[in-house]
Amino acid sequence: MEKWDGNEGTSAFHVPEWMQIQFADQKQEFNKRPTKIGRRSLSRSISQSSTDSYSSAASYTDSSDDETSPRDKQQKNSKGSSDFCVKNIKQAEFGRREIEIAEQEMPALMALRKRAQGEKPLAGAKIVGCTHITAQTAVLMETLGALGAQCRWAACNIYSTLNEVAAALAESGFPVFAWKGESEDDFWWCIDRCVNVEGWQPNMILDDGGDLTHWIYKKYPNMFKKIKGIVEESVTGVHRLYQLSKAGKLCVPAMNVNDSVTKQKFDNLYCCRESILDGLKRTTDMMFGGKQVVVCGYGEVGKGCCAALKAMGSIVYVTEIDPICALQACMDGFRLVKLNEVIRQVDIVITCTGNKNVVTREHLDRMKNSCIVCNMGHSNTEIDVASLRTPELTWERVRSQVDHVIWPDGKRIVLLAEGRLLNLSCSTVPTFVLSITATTQALALIELYNAPEGRYKQDVYLLPKKMDEYVASLHLPTFDAHLTELTDEQAKYLGLNKNGPFKPNYYRY
Amino acid sequence: MEKWDGNEGTSAFHVPEWMQIQFADQKQEFNKRPTKIGRRSLSRSISQSSTDSYSSAASYTDSSDDETSPRDKQQKNSKGSSDFCVKNIKQAEFGRREIEIAEQEMPALMALRKRAQGEKPLAGAKIVGCTHITAQTAVLMETLGALGAQCRWAACNIYSTLNEVAAALAESGFPVFAWKGESEDDFWWCIDRCVNVEGWQPNMILDDGGDLTHWIYKKYPNMFKKIKGIVEESVTGVHRLYQLSKAGKLCVPAMNVNDSVTKQKFDNLYCCRESILDGLKRTTDMMFGGKQVVVCGYGEVGKGCCAALKAMGSIVYVTEIDPICALQACMDGFRLVKLNEVIRQVDIVITCTGNKNVVTREHLDRMKNSCIVCNMGHSNTEIDVASLRTPELTWERVRSQVDHVIWPDGKRIVLLAEGRLLNLSCSTVPTFVLSITATTQALALIELYNAPEGRYKQDVYLLPKKMDEYVASLHLPTFDAHLTELTDEQAKYLGLNKNGPFKPNYYRY
Amino acid sequence: MEKWDGNEGTSAFHVPEWMQIQFADQKQEFNKRPTKIGRRSLSRSISQSSTDSYSSAASYTDSSDDETSPRDKQQKNSKGSSDFCVKNIKQAEFGRREIEIAEQEMPALMALRKRAQGEKPLAGAKIVGCTHITAQTAVLMETLGALGAQCRWAACNIYSTLNEVAAALAESGFPVFAWKGESEDDFWWCIDRCVNVEGWQPNMILDDGGDLTHWIYKKYPNMFKKIKGIVEESVTGVHRLYQLSKAGKLCVPAMNVNDSVTKQKFDNLYCCRESILDGLKRTTDMMFGGKQVVVCGYGEVGKGCCAALKAMGSIVYVTEIDPICALQACMDGFRLVKLNEVIRQVDIVITCTGNKNVVTREHLDRMKNSCIVCNMGHSNTEIDVASLRTPELTWERVRSQVDHVIWPDGKRIVLLAEGRLLNLSCSTVPTFVLSITATTQALALIELYNAPEGRYKQDVYLLPKKMDEYVASLHLPTFDAHLTELTDEQAKYLGLNKNGPFKPNYYRY
Amino acid sequence: MEKWDGNEGTSAFHVPEWMQIQFADQKQEFNKRPTKIGRRSLSRSISQSSTDSYSSAASYTDSSDDETSPRDKQQKNSKGSSDFCVKNIKQAEFGRREIEIAEQEMPALMALRKRAQGEKPLAGAKIVGCTHITAQTAVLMETLGALGAQCRWAACNIYSTLNEVAAALAESGFPVFAWKGESEDDFWWCIDRCVNVEGWQPNMILDDGGDLTHWIYKKYPNMFKKIKGIVEESVTGVHRLYQLSKAGKLCVPAMNVNDSVTKQKFDNLYCCRESILDGLKRTTDMMFGGKQVVVCGYGEVGKGCCAALKAMGSIVYVTEIDPICALQACMDGFRLVKLNEVIRQVDIVITCTGNKNVVTREHLDRMKNSCIVCNMGHSNTEIDVASLRTPELTWERVRSQVDHVIWPDGKRIVLLAEGRLLNLSCSTVPTFVLSITATTQALALIELYNAPEGRYKQDVYLLPKKMDEYVASLHLPTFDAHLTELTDEQAKYLGLNKNGPFKPNYYRY
Repeated sequence: MEKWDGNEGTSAFHVPEWMQIQFADQKQEFNKRPTKIGRRSLSRSISQSSTDSYSSAASYTDSSDDETSPRDKQQKNSKGSSDFCVKNIKQAEFGRREIEIAEQEMPALMALRKRAQGEKPLAGAKIVGCTHITAQTAVLMETLGALGAQCRWAACNIYSTLNEVAAALAESGFPVFAWKGESEDDFWWCIDRCVNVEGWQPNMILDDGGDLTHWIYKKYPNMFKKIKGIVEESVTGVHRLYQLSKAGKLCVPAMNVNDSVTKQKFDNLYCCRESILDGLKRTTDMMFGGKQVVVCGYGEVGKGCCAALKAMGSIVYVTEIDPICALQACMDGFRLVKLNEVIRQVDIVITCTGNKNVVTREHLDRMKNSCIVCNMGHSNTEIDVASLRTPELTWERVRSQVDHVIWPDGKRIVLLAEGRLLNLSCSTVPTFVLSITATTQALALIELYNAPEGRYKQDVYLLPKKMDEYVASLHLPTFDAHLTELTDEQAKYLGLNKNGPFKPNYYRY
Repeated sequence: MEKWDGNEGTSAFHVPEWMQIQFADQKQEFNKRPTKIGRRSLSRSISQSSTDSYSSAASYTDSSDDETSPRDKQQKNSKGSSDFCVKNIKQAEFGRREIEIAEQEMPALMALRKRAQGEKPLAGAKIVGCTHITAQTAVLMETLGALGAQCRWAACNIYSTLNEVAAALAESGFPVFAWKGESEDDFWWCIDRCVNVEGWQPNMILDDGGDLTHWIYKKYPNMFKKIKGIVEESVTGVHRLYQLSKAGKLCVPAMNVNDSVTKQKFDNLYCCRESILDGLKRTTDMMFGGKQVVVCGYGEVGKGCCAALKAMGSIVYVTEIDPICALQACMDGFRLVKLNEVIRQVDIVITCTGNKNVVTREHLDRMKNSCIVCNMGHSNTEIDVASLRTPELTWERVRSQVDHVIWPDGKRIVLLAEGRLLNLSCSTVPTFVLSITATTQALALIELYNAPEGRYKQDVYLLPKKMDEYVASLHLPTFDAHLTELTDEQAKYLGLNKNGPFKPNYYRY
Repeated sequence: MEKWDGNEGTSAFHVPEWMQIQFADQKQEFNKRPTKIGRRSLSRSISQSSTDSYSSAASYTDSSDDETSPRDKQQKNSKGSSDFCVKNIKQAEFGRREIEIAEQEMPALMALRKRAQGEKPLAGAKIVGCTHITAQTAVLMETLGALGAQCRWAACNIYSTLNEVAAALAESGFPVFAWKGESEDDFWWCIDRCVNVEGWQPNMILDDGGDLTHWIYKKYPNMFKKIKGIVEESVTGVHRLYQLSKAGKLCVPAMNVNDSVTKQKFDNLYCCRESILDGLKRTTDMMFGGKQVVVCGYGEVGKGCCAALKAMGSIVYVTEIDPICALQACMDGFRLVKLNEVIRQVDIVITCTGNKNVVTREHLDRMKNSCIVCNMGHSNTEIDVASLRTPELTWERVRSQVDHVIWPDGKRIVLLAEGRLLNLSCSTVPTFVLSITATTQALALIELYNAPEGRYKQDVYLLPKKMDEYVASLHLPTFDAHLTELTDEQAKYLGLNKNGPFKPNYYRY
Repeated sequence: MEKWDGNEGTSAFHVPEWMQIQFADQKQEFNKRPTKIGRRSLSRSISQSSTDSYSSAASYTDSSDDETSPRDKQQKNSKGSSDFCVKNIKQAEFGRREIEIAEQEMPALMALRKRAQGEKPLAGAKIVGCTHITAQTAVLMETLGALGAQCRWAACNIYSTLNEVAAALAESGFPVFAWKGESEDDFWWCIDRCVNVEGWQPNMILDDGGDLTHWIYKKYPNMFKKIKGIVEESVTGVHRLYQLSKAGKLCVPAMNVNDSVTKQKFDNLYCCRESILDGLKRTTDMMFGGKQVVVCGYGEVGKGCCAALKAMGSIVYVTEIDPICALQACMDGFRLVKLNEVIRQVDIVITCTGNKNVVTREHLDRMKNSCIVCNMGHSNTEIDVASLRTPELTWERVRSQVDHVIWPDGKRIVLLAEGRLLNLSCSTVPTFVLSITATTQALALIELYNAPEGRYKQDVYLLPKKMDEYVASLHLPTFDAHLTELTDEQAKYLGLNKNGPFKPNYYRY
């Protein structure tokens, strides 16, 4: 088994400031239903990601006229159950169709379901989940069900729930507590409804952002006695787990699926290679050919952005702090510069660093007229947007997600998504990418749930390489791709098992 | 410090058969000078790499008429020393010019020399080395000297020594024992002359292929008491070390520089991206546009080959055994096939697997007329060349490194370098790549020599990430590349030291 | 001057069937205002392009509630003029802002305006125009005004007028007759109002699609006595002119700006390279990596599509009828196939041939589930969409411009824009491309208007190469591109004028 | 039929100074055999291309010891004929093998031979040829023979003849007059022996460079009475013909095969895309990744160089004089600069302009140390090499075709091939490219020889498009490429003949 980091004694790993979040001083009056105003003033501990805006988060059907809070409604599904809370159970049929379409594009999960007809590797599992609630998540949940698990689910983001899908899940018997446009109070209430149930206790956690894990730690620490493991998918949540581990407070094994090879490459390199073009085009209708672009950061995201823009005929400059990534940028044909050197001449500035204040007010002051500024990194800190909210600058919203910030001399900067993630705000994530993530989550749950005593300790683990390879292999048929098998003789020569794993742990792909 | 593999208990790492080589049953009568015939029949334990042919290995000046063995000659350099054995000390001047030209292209080592004017991090070091002896190696050796070390050197390959360079080194006082065209007996004799000296014992080993290390283990095991560490650069040598470690026989720390990030990317991805084109063009003058090519293996080497050929207008198919690499091939735009599916239609077959018998006689029988077959992998086992040495097939040498193998029906297969490495046999390695390797070696020696007691145990280590980053940073000025520095605020936010290391150990680049 | 085609006697040029349209037998009762129903049944002679749908054609402001036909309204601009007919003159301010934004992205026209402060090359010109009415067209019209011309304008497409822009033009004194959603009767009425004026006769025509030219031929043939020339920008219109010329009926010189180098490359190669990705992404959110795509036709449009998809990691097959283009496809790295050979395996089918029934029902029957089918060619004939309107197939509109066509066995084909142009229907044309076209039109008008007697006869001409080069040079500053000038000595050596033209007429770029 | 240039009255075409060569004042004493010294001082009228050096021009076998001039030898082939003059008739067998290998790579000519088994389109043709004499030319000549023609042949370049091939041709009965290393006097003597024969008069000319045509004009003008046409393949020769035409002195039709589409694309774009990499690598072993390169000129050659280097990870700048090509460079992702702006920073300078003194001494003075300078254009005038032959600079030949020019301060410039064509001097032309040229020549001969009276006048013509398409189609099988055929219905719709031509004459590909 691959552990997160075998060398914690050394300085190689770091705990970023932005992860050192508030576990201590949170005091939430949860059980009292707050007034509407009260709701908003609650809980500062909500994770950043839970309030990110999502372009794919639009409801399919229009239900804007229904102002009643779902918490105040009495709803039953067709089997008479009311153990759920969604916007409108009547939207179930529409949601079901969306789920069916998603099933067609998630062959790996469907393959798992097929295998589950014989064995039920999750029989007895009681999974509580907190993720985006979309058609793709529904396919995952119903797969977990087919594998033998019982599930209860809340949303990890107050905007991203697709109400129709939530309705369809509720209709088919899943206790789902989520709707689009929750207040922060709603958010915690929904999570609580998932875990605080009579006669049911979770033994597995599937989390995205760490809010569910956090809630159980705060409210029901005893629950961990029965929990066999946590599967966490987000950067933020993984780092929270790591903090817990470091502080000696992690009391169950946790699986970091965020850093599995396949997920990383698809979420970052392959997905961003496409979404940078899509995000820029949908918002600005600009032409890429001949444009001068500076990309800040040459990690997987930066590599994807640079490759795409170069292919479209842009001239791309790169900034980096890490000399190894910098040398890669050079060998891939990009001029490595400091931002100051090119800021006056570029047509587009793209941040992908994970850092803060990479684009400062000083940079913004020096950009030329019509320069486009956007962020593909992991949060909204990379561009110092706050510095633009000063009286001498005029903001003009020209279309959804596009602001013109106008200097006194008439110069306009085109700011996209107010500095939040362009790919999430102005593009969409392809189902294929979500399929990889969901399959990884399912396999991590199976692994943790079935692992023999002692294989995993109270620590954070990477997905075993063999499972990473299995996720990949389940997605090859999509491309009609034919894998070669080792002969016995070759396997012996290489010292490998014919079924993998095929690489040493440090292999970089 | 990053250790090779923190999880040896698990099955993730493997000991390939081809590395399980003969440490036990070797009986070499070393000290008796054998007759000429006798020499050839000696020592089976010589490493495979020590007999590879090299295109860059040609002597600059013609000295073919001199048939006397260097071992039988009496030579002195201008200072009167005769502690060396080279082809012809009179070639020193020509060699010196070559070294001076190489210095211009190895700015990183020259930068180290400059820093060494103040401190001498290798003062007291006694390094015994066994590598290719080329102008670039000479720059490394003279840098080690400038850093305070004493060196004695032999060649790791019987063909690759540049006699003029060896002469120049001998002339300037380095005890060098090497010439182009050594017999296997010469090979071991030279190594022995490096270590078996009165009044001098090495305390550091720099090895390429493991033959030197092997020799000391066999002949002078007590020497390890004074040795502070081994730096090994080859795949083969690294695996030998790993075997020793596993068997509990490794008695000093060893540094695996082969798997450092920078070296890997340059030796494989970036270098092969260029040398596949160069090797094919020099041997066949073929046109790449429109050609159908199958590349077996999509590791770093395969990735480089595929990218280059795709860019030149070839249609590229890929075969893979590892589903993760296979999925990468798909996302990069290559059809993933089994070799059988395309073998009848392709114009070129390239192996880059590290495996054996990837291209079998059966495949060769089915190829079309004029199909080109070559190997970019790590040894000469990938194409079953032996299967072609049968009576019904005619071999025709059409130019250096190019054979036509002719079937009874007239079909010709174009076999390059008899299945040995195309890039080494038919292309050249750019000095810039060698500079990266040499700098990595120098830094690994400094690190091992200066490490405080206890930092390294009797195990195999990867180069600390910070040093990997340092190697990269020393090469950035070549590209006039300007690195960005973190502000204090940013470093704090990211939880990083401003000078690195910048990434967690598992980062994949 | 470059003439269209110097060799009409030979068979090199062809008159496609689809252009052999109805000049003879059209009888339109124009002057009677028809009833609403009557309007629709009128005039078959409207050009195909005049009814194409446009995604960029949405009005900025919502005025859907106003049901009164503009023809029935009484409107005056602020100066008291009522010589125009637009949807709502009160939208002028909004439209003006759009025009001002467009001005910033059309530097070439702004440069012409600047030069016009001294000389007025269009002084005395009376231009009647019929084009799409957008912010970019407004910049063109106001530039023509600044150059000295009087203009009257109608729309060339019944859907594409931006009402706000039309209002802004009317407000600033341009007699504009156009609105979004004209009936076919409205369409001809608007054109007539442009030319049928007391006391004003046009002496130049700027047409897009040939409808305006056609109308004058039919209704006011005597008008041609005063007309100095026609500038036509569309494929269809150009072919109509060619037909007239061939029939000996072209009575004034005409300039084919459609085939100027710069316009061709931007409208086709460069624009489609970007819009194929944009159009597919906006409609399907698909991932390009690893997808198998067949592109029918390897002209400029096909070349752009193939390059973009290959860069995004798709595997691209090409079909061609022309062996030269086919050989280019091979050399660019694409497998050249017949559609039948790959139709079962591809994920996307894209047509760019200008031909008809390239994708037949038989092909559609054999495609795999979820295959996407779309058209980037010049009309809606390439995919036999009509063949899909049969009872056994179910159509399901899944979102705007996206239909699922469902076979009895459940197989779904994803048909985009019902087989109409994907780039126009589901993407947008960047302002930069429109700027090139508008500049070309302006220069063609200047050239024809100022040409000395005899330079142009009653024939169809290509834009003089020098003007083509001038259009290009006006757009270089956008890219901060610095052109090199020939020295006198070099110009003499090459036998060139230092100011161009720089290439022989047959140069292919 | 497509004529060269239908608009000679306008300024679009230009007669470069470098083509205004010496037709008037040449006085050559030809018939007297000069002394050896005398030979060298002769004939200034030899075309530039006839003395270019060629890397592919090496003899296969070593015959350097034979010092006797072929003109002084008595040789007979095995059938007793002595109507030839080659280096050594005994090398015929080796040459024959080379021809057989070439036949395998020239399937188009072999296909023509096959068709010729029925009809002999060149029956009665008496062709005199003057081209490079290589294995590929031999395949062409023997194809012309198979098509019914009689041929006599000389070399168009004093260095490029492969003696073994010439011997093989002589052995099989072709009167060939050529050897490697002719003097200028030999050159004209060989040409004269081809045309000045008793009882045989040519009726077709196949020329490369125009020297043969020139000789007949000067010496045997009456011969043109029987000549049906000239096929010319070189830029220089074509321009000479154009001059003749302009001066009214061209007395037979001539076919410019140099500007046929297929040949242009292959000779320039596709071939240079590969040979720039090959030429640089073979001479310098440099690494392309990260290098800064400036390419002067963005015509077909420049486009090929830029695409290849960009793909290998170089950062490429472009200079241009033509705004259209400049805009293409921008859209393809290259910074357009003046040479001065980047000359201090680039690692490589490549000229592809056809111009002179593009790189001046001033530029060379400002380049950085180790900068590589080379020429891919059409002659050796682009780099002002003469300016480097001054006393303060030291030249050092470091290997074949590579000079270091050393400044007083130690700066070295790496000059390749002394400024002559890199692709010809330091790379090789693939057989596939030569096959396209040879097929074009054969078809041009057939067309001119069989054209009905009056189709061609005394002018210069481009190859009919249909033949250009035919050349392409003959080469598609090499790529297993499958062309689509129009249905009758489609052909009618497009107004095309199903067999082509498929494009209007002005189509740019």
